[in-house]
Amino acid sequence: MITKVSLAEKLALFDDHWQPRIVGELNDAHVKLVKVQGEFVWHHHENEDELFLVLRGRLQMKLRDGDLWIEPGEFVIIPKGVEHCPVAPEETHILLLEPKTTLNTGNVSSERTVDAQWI
Amino acid sequence: MITKVSLAEKLALFDDHWQPRIVGELNDAHVKLVKVQGEFVWHHHENEDELFLVLRGRLQMKLRDGDLWIEPGEFVIIPKGVEHCPVAPEETHILLLEPKTTLNTGNVSSERTVDAQWI
Repeated sequence: MITKVSLAEKLALFDDHWQPRIVGELNDAHVKLVKVQGEFVWHHHENEDELFLVLRGRLQMKLRDGDLWIEPGEFVIIPKGVEHCPVAPEETHILLLEPKTTLNTGNVSSERTVDAQWI
Repeated sequence: MITKVSLAEKLALFDDHWQPRIVGELNDAHVKLVKVQGEFVWHHHENEDELFLVLRGRLQMKLRDGDLWIEPGEFVIIPKGVEHCPVAPEETHILLLEPKTTLNTGNVSSERTVDAQWI
């Protein structure tokens, strides 16, 4: 049974920050939604490229050689191996696309490390 | 050099229909943008799941066991092997995510078959 997914309906199901929810799977990847605010942890992913599409708010993607500001309707792809630290001055909603093997904190084990759950 | 991508800026670069443009790559997948209007061709993809996220307009995804209407902010994932035929009664803008190997018309060779180009 193929069904469509509404981003707004899924986003209405949770309010916590830095806890990605899985909303779709295709090939070897998961589509996730996450709400973030504040600063995450510096990390990289050994084997996975990761896409961040901002839906609301704005995301500061800190990189070792400079920062990017990602606004709604914009995305950035962080290639495997590249250290990054997402920061959001206000509540920001993000669609993530990444391989199923991806852990949110990558190479770092932190209190922020969580297994994403399906909603 | 990591740069962000604005969907609106990329969409402003072309006006033709059913000609996907590549705007990002991650892992073994491409992120594409396409403008569509009218009816496409029935086809399936042997080995690739395909994600359609509607940005503007509305997309009727015809399936053999019923149709889905996808509105802005909604997506559908068509699993490999599933026949589908996208239709758009008005101009509709879509973000596609699919493996790099994906041909737009899947198993069907048609005048609609095109190689996606980077923009």
